[in-house]
Amino acid sequence: MILTNQTICAPATPPGTGAISVVRVSGKNAFAITDKVFRKKNSGKKISELLSHSVHFGNIPDGDELIDEVLVSVFKSPHSYTGEDVVEISCHGSAFIVQKILNLLIRNGARAAEPGEFTMRAFINGKMDLSQAEGVADIIASDSEASLRLAMQQMRGGYSAELKKLRDELIRFASLLELELDFSEEDVEFADRSMLLESVQNLKFKVQSLMKSFELGNVLKKGIPVVIAGKPNAGKSTLLNALLREDRAIVSHIPGTTRDTVEEEITLDGILFRFIDTAGLRQTMDAVESIGVSRTLEKVKQCKTLIYLFDVNETTAVELQNEIADIEKILGNSKPNLILCGNKTDLVKNGMENKFQSIENIYFISAKNQTHIDLVITELTAPFVSGIKNAGNATVTNARHYEALLRADESLSKVIGGLASKTTNDFIATDLRHAMNYLGTITGEITTDDLLKSIFEKFCIGK
Amino acid sequence: MILTNQTICAPATPPGTGAISVVRVSGKNAFAITDKVFRKKNSGKKISELLSHSVHFGNIPDGDELIDEVLVSVFKSPHSYTGEDVVEISCHGSAFIVQKILNLLIRNGARAAEPGEFTMRAFINGKMDLSQAEGVADIIASDSEASLRLAMQQMRGGYSAELKKLRDELIRFASLLELELDFSEEDVEFADRSMLLESVQNLKFKVQSLMKSFELGNVLKKGIPVVIAGKPNAGKSTLLNALLREDRAIVSHIPGTTRDTVEEEITLDGILFRFIDTAGLRQTMDAVESIGVSRTLEKVKQCKTLIYLFDVNETTAVELQNEIADIEKILGNSKPNLILCGNKTDLVKNGMENKFQSIENIYFISAKNQTHIDLVITELTAPFVSGIKNAGNATVTNARHYEALLRADESLSKVIGGLASKTTNDFIATDLRHAMNYLGTITGEITTDDLLKSIFEKFCIGK
Repeated sequence: MILTNQTICAPATPPGTGAISVVRVSGKNAFAITDKVFRKKNSGKKISELLSHSVHFGNIPDGDELIDEVLVSVFKSPHSYTGEDVVEISCHGSAFIVQKILNLLIRNGARAAEPGEFTMRAFINGKMDLSQAEGVADIIASDSEASLRLAMQQMRGGYSAELKKLRDELIRFASLLELELDFSEEDVEFADRSMLLESVQNLKFKVQSLMKSFELGNVLKKGIPVVIAGKPNAGKSTLLNALLREDRAIVSHIPGTTRDTVEEEITLDGILFRFIDTAGLRQTMDAVESIGVSRTLEKVKQCKTLIYLFDVNETTAVELQNEIADIEKILGNSKPNLILCGNKTDLVKNGMENKFQSIENIYFISAKNQTHIDLVITELTAPFVSGIKNAGNATVTNARHYEALLRADESLSKVIGGLASKTTNDFIATDLRHAMNYLGTITGEITTDDLLKSIFEKFCIGK
Repeated sequence: MILTNQTICAPATPPGTGAISVVRVSGKNAFAITDKVFRKKNSGKKISELLSHSVHFGNIPDGDELIDEVLVSVFKSPHSYTGEDVVEISCHGSAFIVQKILNLLIRNGARAAEPGEFTMRAFINGKMDLSQAEGVADIIASDSEASLRLAMQQMRGGYSAELKKLRDELIRFASLLELELDFSEEDVEFADRSMLLESVQNLKFKVQSLMKSFELGNVLKKGIPVVIAGKPNAGKSTLLNALLREDRAIVSHIPGTTRDTVEEEITLDGILFRFIDTAGLRQTMDAVESIGVSRTLEKVKQCKTLIYLFDVNETTAVELQNEIADIEKILGNSKPNLILCGNKTDLVKNGMENKFQSIENIYFISAKNQTHIDLVITELTAPFVSGIKNAGNATVTNARHYEALLRADESLSKVIGGLASKTTNDFIATDLRHAMNYLGTITGEITTDDLLKSIFEKFCIGK
């Protein structure tokens, strides 16, 4: 059992130097412990006597020494992040002071919080369900408009309501089937089999549409893999630089926000694109000509978009058609969005573009002069922009949720199979219960200490 | 002129990922601008209608999109850090969200704050004097008990009161002298010259005692330079490791708090010691024997403490006496605290220690077994512990303040010289005014835009 009768404390702001740092205390003794360490200015009032959502100036002494002058914000249960009594201590932005305050709180009866323990308590106290709690972690990690939007939807309930409805239906069906089992000797039929089949098929369709949303949700969260391919000197790195210059990310310069991959990440219209690393890029470009480099080919096959770049001055229509055929051979069954870009139009003398009339959908660009790069960007973002619009609140971004949906879907398949082959009620009811449990793990209606541990240990300390 | 009629905003917490980040807004439009971006839950109240020091939950939307759910803390002028209307927006700890909120505030009329601009406004609005404002920056940078204590004293007023008293006396004298000038034709004497001389000497003594405190204050702030010297194989690096193991710093493991020097920094009993880098250390040890390496010798001469380490098993009393004489020759006029340590007592067979009876104050230790290291630590910290105790509130740690005191002292010398040589009142009054102005620059009673700029540009953004 997870212990929630202890009062926990942790830094709530990132480590490092800043104007202020915040230390968070939560638990049934949060007020009493704060009373021991905090001297409110001009007042002998106890924290518990203060208004919820009020801020108070005072000192934190340690014996004869003053650790810091601080602001203390009071949040009374249940009106706090965790649902417990919470105190936020806002001190000067020094890791040293934060550590001193934490030590003092711990000496007075608090315990250092585990990663994610505040949010776990919010879950346990019914302030949010499990998928919302996971949304909180995603919000903190979000680094593009699209990923923030999805995380925010999830934290605010997202498909929790939809899942709950699906689950309630399953519970109802399972109950009816089990009721029949109780009366099995009397041969009563409470559940209309054909109606049940239709409803389960309906459910399965909804589960599958959530599963399908994961494909979009996952790439939006992680960034959309793109490959720029083309012959040497087609201007691939010039195009990459042109796209980088159009990067509309607003935080790319802030330390700590870049992911530790070797890929170029470019945010275009709020969507994060991952261009495979230039070293790999160079290999891949060669690979497109000399088929054989399997690892990079694998990357090419996984990409959602492939930009094929050619020099309009050095390429004939026939050559281009052959090159396109080559690429399609390489790609095989994977069908990324293929964007054809005729580069170096700045060097074209007299209407050379006519020679490609036989081939459709070519963007004629000059990467060097930044000409028509905006059209390429629109082509890059378009499939996802419409996807985001259509997704609504029901976009699955979490691999754990996808896994649970997959298992629920399998169980529903068994139910449908069972209904078709007239299997006995107890088997069907069991499969329905399984499906129900899998869906329940997403929002945390069904949970185990291990599951909670594995989810919250990925959080940062203080959240 | 520094513009304070604009409303400023900045992140107040360090960049990076954490549970929460805080954005600070200050200025006469802080409430109106926040009203434009913040949707308070269940309330149509304006920020200006809310209680000061109250916290409110709500959303920050950007068009149809939700940027984040936030807590907004309201501080009404003059009861805020800057003395102006201040809003603190506490959002999820993501640099991306912080940037989005800042962009939104700026679009609605706020301006990005310059480094230290919040604290500069606190100074301009009379919430603190200049030396207190500088104390704030020192608090944030503090990384040991001793440096935090000094910075805290300074921020809380420290020697501001003492300086003000000194300055008021100077103003009184200068006025009397200038009054005499006005009546010079009548040969009236308002100021009793011998009393004036005595008072100025008294003042000079106080200025000099503040200047003297800088020696302690500066090393406590920056760390006390220590050299461990001794022959090869005396066990110098073993001793350094033994001291490192005793390091009682509580933040040495937190990233961002280590200074970018090549020296070993060890906190013992709350005092920061800087052991010169091991590469330099090795050179210095050799240098102690083979006099000649000037740069490392310079370092040795600057150290506050020199630990001379010798192997009790390999050294005779006569040898040790010669080595001590050599060290004293090298040190010349610089008189650091010399700590003699006889190492490797763990290898002593039968009472070998008697052979050093003729030499006083040797610590017999075993760096390897950690024996009597505590005694060495007490010897290292003792001179500073008593200094800190005696210093009271009047410890100067700031080089700018020291410079101002130095100039004030020079002017006071001129006043004393002038009084002795019966110089005319106008020269003496001018020197008194100079002394007064120099003291005034410390607390900011005398200030210029350039001075303010040079002080506050060293602050971090958001403070």
